[in-house]
Amino acid sequence: MPTHLLRIDCPDEPGLVYRVTGVLFHHGFNIISNHEFVDPATQHFFMRTAFAGATAPAAVVDDLRQAIPHAAIRLAPTGKRSVVALVTKEAHCLGDLLLRQADADFPARIEAVISNYQTLAPLVEQFGVPFHYISHQDLDRPEHERAIVHVLEDYQPDYLVLAKYMRILTPEFVARYPHQIVNIHHSFLPAFVGARPYQQAFERGVKIIGATAHIVTDDLDTGPIIAQDVLPVTHSYTAANMAHAGRDVEKIILAKALRLILEERVFIHENRTIIFE
Amino acid sequence: MPTHLLRIDCPDEPGLVYRVTGVLFHHGFNIISNHEFVDPATQHFFMRTAFAGATAPAAVVDDLRQAIPHAAIRLAPTGKRSVVALVTKEAHCLGDLLLRQADADFPARIEAVISNYQTLAPLVEQFGVPFHYISHQDLDRPEHERAIVHVLEDYQPDYLVLAKYMRILTPEFVARYPHQIVNIHHSFLPAFVGARPYQQAFERGVKIIGATAHIVTDDLDTGPIIAQDVLPVTHSYTAANMAHAGRDVEKIILAKALRLILEERVFIHENRTIIFE
Amino acid sequence: MPTHLLRIDCPDEPGLVYRVTGVLFHHGFNIISNHEFVDPATQHFFMRTAFAGATAPAAVVDDLRQAIPHAAIRLAPTGKRSVVALVTKEAHCLGDLLLRQADADFPARIEAVISNYQTLAPLVEQFGVPFHYISHQDLDRPEHERAIVHVLEDYQPDYLVLAKYMRILTPEFVARYPHQIVNIHHSFLPAFVGARPYQQAFERGVKIIGATAHIVTDDLDTGPIIAQDVLPVTHSYTAANMAHAGRDVEKIILAKALRLILEERVFIHENRTIIFE
Amino acid sequence: MPTHLLRIDCPDEPGLVYRVTGVLFHHGFNIISNHEFVDPATQHFFMRTAFAGATAPAAVVDDLRQAIPHAAIRLAPTGKRSVVALVTKEAHCLGDLLLRQADADFPARIEAVISNYQTLAPLVEQFGVPFHYISHQDLDRPEHERAIVHVLEDYQPDYLVLAKYMRILTPEFVARYPHQIVNIHHSFLPAFVGARPYQQAFERGVKIIGATAHIVTDDLDTGPIIAQDVLPVTHSYTAANMAHAGRDVEKIILAKALRLILEERVFIHENRTIIFE
Repeated sequence: MPTHLLRIDCPDEPGLVYRVTGVLFHHGFNIISNHEFVDPATQHFFMRTAFAGATAPAAVVDDLRQAIPHAAIRLAPTGKRSVVALVTKEAHCLGDLLLRQADADFPARIEAVISNYQTLAPLVEQFGVPFHYISHQDLDRPEHERAIVHVLEDYQPDYLVLAKYMRILTPEFVARYPHQIVNIHHSFLPAFVGARPYQQAFERGVKIIGATAHIVTDDLDTGPIIAQDVLPVTHSYTAANMAHAGRDVEKIILAKALRLILEERVFIHENRTIIFE
Repeated sequence: MPTHLLRIDCPDEPGLVYRVTGVLFHHGFNIISNHEFVDPATQHFFMRTAFAGATAPAAVVDDLRQAIPHAAIRLAPTGKRSVVALVTKEAHCLGDLLLRQADADFPARIEAVISNYQTLAPLVEQFGVPFHYISHQDLDRPEHERAIVHVLEDYQPDYLVLAKYMRILTPEFVARYPHQIVNIHHSFLPAFVGARPYQQAFERGVKIIGATAHIVTDDLDTGPIIAQDVLPVTHSYTAANMAHAGRDVEKIILAKALRLILEERVFIHENRTIIFE
Repeated sequence: MPTHLLRIDCPDEPGLVYRVTGVLFHHGFNIISNHEFVDPATQHFFMRTAFAGATAPAAVVDDLRQAIPHAAIRLAPTGKRSVVALVTKEAHCLGDLLLRQADADFPARIEAVISNYQTLAPLVEQFGVPFHYISHQDLDRPEHERAIVHVLEDYQPDYLVLAKYMRILTPEFVARYPHQIVNIHHSFLPAFVGARPYQQAFERGVKIIGATAHIVTDDLDTGPIIAQDVLPVTHSYTAANMAHAGRDVEKIILAKALRLILEERVFIHENRTIIFE
Repeated sequence: MPTHLLRIDCPDEPGLVYRVTGVLFHHGFNIISNHEFVDPATQHFFMRTAFAGATAPAAVVDDLRQAIPHAAIRLAPTGKRSVVALVTKEAHCLGDLLLRQADADFPARIEAVISNYQTLAPLVEQFGVPFHYISHQDLDRPEHERAIVHVLEDYQPDYLVLAKYMRILTPEFVARYPHQIVNIHHSFLPAFVGARPYQQAFERGVKIIGATAHIVTDDLDTGPIIAQDVLPVTHSYTAANMAHAGRDVEKIILAKALRLILEERVFIHENRTIIFE
């Protein structure tokens, strides 16, 4: 029987789970998995339900909208979601995503890659994915972004992934893709915000470095965090060694974050994320 | 408003969450947190619900027993649970538990400590906890266990914790405390079952060692696992170094497992555990 | 045969290891373990050598001072080192140290505990360790610190450990104990410097929290880092839950850092540490 | 100035480091990094020295062989080492190695890939690497291995990497490549030896799964371990979910182990490894 996925969030009140599960039960659906959370700080309710049944799920959404009028209710689309990657020169995150998309279980399909350098064109093209070189030279930031948007309009992707894209995006660009841009920041945020985080980490003499995947909001480093991981380093690591070692964490965490978002496991609430794994 | 905790498990069928939340709603309770899981292999349903309200929760249980007759339904007791610790000579796990019980948030109260050696008597007594020395010398195993049971009958503890108790328990003893004995095994089970796991780990040249906290069933090393953790080791660790380094993991994992059980977060199902954290 | 420990650091030049090992060889000592490191940024050389032999090691130091006149050379003292702990109200780090010092392998002997609250007096006294209550009420910071120094002068400890001591030390106090004060900071430095790091971590929505043990230099949060560790958290953790979960990491990392320092494994160089484990 | 790498191992005796560093000093070389270890169980000495200087290093080896006649002394070759990968059907480990070899810092050059299935041919060929399909159908094990050896003789690789090669190798095959075959075993050895380790892990209800990279000796699962890592799992993971999650650990650990071996950081001693990181 086909499986469907429902996301609901609204201010908490008694009986929400009862009402949602009642609608599903009366339509003859069986719940496969159910996650709920009430944020204690704001008394906001979040629910993600996977359910199966023979009938079409649209009527469920209609009934739920009647039962809980103030809720945000969404039936998730099925199948792979389309993603365009923005990159600069580093191959490790992008290569990892290109490999993973061949996996039937990975929820992303990389439609195209856009870069301000030509470095990664051979890698991308060997995977049969279109590569768009859009240099930022001789362009101001809005002009460069307009050129990128022009390409993006051909693809209409569900999400953008910044796979080590080393340029800052304008608020105007970000506003076009609200909560649809995932970035990997090469540090354990908020430890080393900004440029050259590994150099900063080396100078501070830390014993652990990390990476942070997050939703891009108004600037590159402060959006809601989806996933983080770390690895130990020692005094024998130079800043370059740290950057090198950090690559493995960066690629794993970016892929994990992309998977969580595309599988509709991430809710965003007041610059924090609720994640149902 | 007082908070209550309900545990339910039964074969899965449509409408279970709907029925449970319906009973809670109609009695005027508000759900604070809700965890559900359906084991895909056996189609068994598990639910743990914390709920708050002004009325007594006993009527909820009665109504639930009518609504889901075949389910195991249990209202969890409130407050700290009583625990007796069995130990041999090593102080690290026991000392850690004795320290933690002073914490209002820790759900265990160590009623007494029983040991087959006198080594730890001063430590236990400085915490004001009764220490019972029951040597195994000149006793066969059933005789020794009878002496232990004799002491335990005075305390009627909710749980026993084997905090580095280095003797094997008979099936008869274990059967007296079904799913009520927690053990810490000083290896990453099932890697090095049996005696001297650190010596085994050293000889195998592993790069990671670990510890496993589990429910004791018929023998010391094969019961349902509650928690495990590991730490990296190198070629420079002797078996003794590994044992020493392992102590930190052992004490943290044993305390974590005890907390999970006493907070009613652990369901046992076919030698596996379902844990709602 | 008795074992000795030698620490050497100096600007790097060819032949340093050759000269050191030559002196040891000619005095009939056998090297048990040897660690060397040359910092690539500053070309500074660090060496820690454990060696064994029947004769007294003092002549080795004399010969080394002749062979490498510009080096800092130090023969480490043997046996446990004396430590005084400063605490406020939280028991977990202090309790852990008090338990560990009974272990023959732990290199610290807690001579006394000083606190600005009486909260931990019973715990400390049950371990037979003197507890000094020095309230900061009605005293300005220098006055309070003078009262602490007055007590410390009776003990003349090798090191001070700040085991969740929640007051800022003046530069004058820190200057009295150069590189002899170890602090546990309850965050993954430099992520959440200052007060209430768990509240900061919660508001930022991080998925990992941590703790940092470091040498205290001019202020509480920027000295050379000795050890760090982390643990994962989720959206379901409040700031209070994070603080609670962080305790286990804090106590393990503080004890680890203290061990590393007392075993003479830590060199400090330009606000970074070189650590020979 | 060019850098060289020297590996020495021999029974321990006084003065070894002194003699080695003396030879380097007298030839005008400067030591860049130095690692030594004496195995306490067997009193065997291991040393890895990177040194730089203007002259050729061959004379150093001659002098060392005179100074320490019983030692195994080896000057490591420079540049990337040639590797042939054996695979079956899974892409994740192989894809990761193919991506990494483009990195100037990665010490392996994948010369060719051999598989008993055609599944991975397109992936390999898009990287411009020769793919050899050698089916095992209608061949007994020695016949199949002879066909593989026939291809390997064309490449004369320094090492073989089993990147999820799901067939058991005969002792005769392994004996051709002594200590030159690296395998990734998809479990935390020795926890789940043999077939279907994730199914075994699921049935045992473990909370942590892992992967082990090791040198292949007489059978696939018992050779000296180079690297291991783990990841947490919960009751909600099926055996298939575990296998999926395990892929990230497998690929990272296999690449790490290959790097350690090719950078000449691994000594093998009595089925254990000494690793100088």
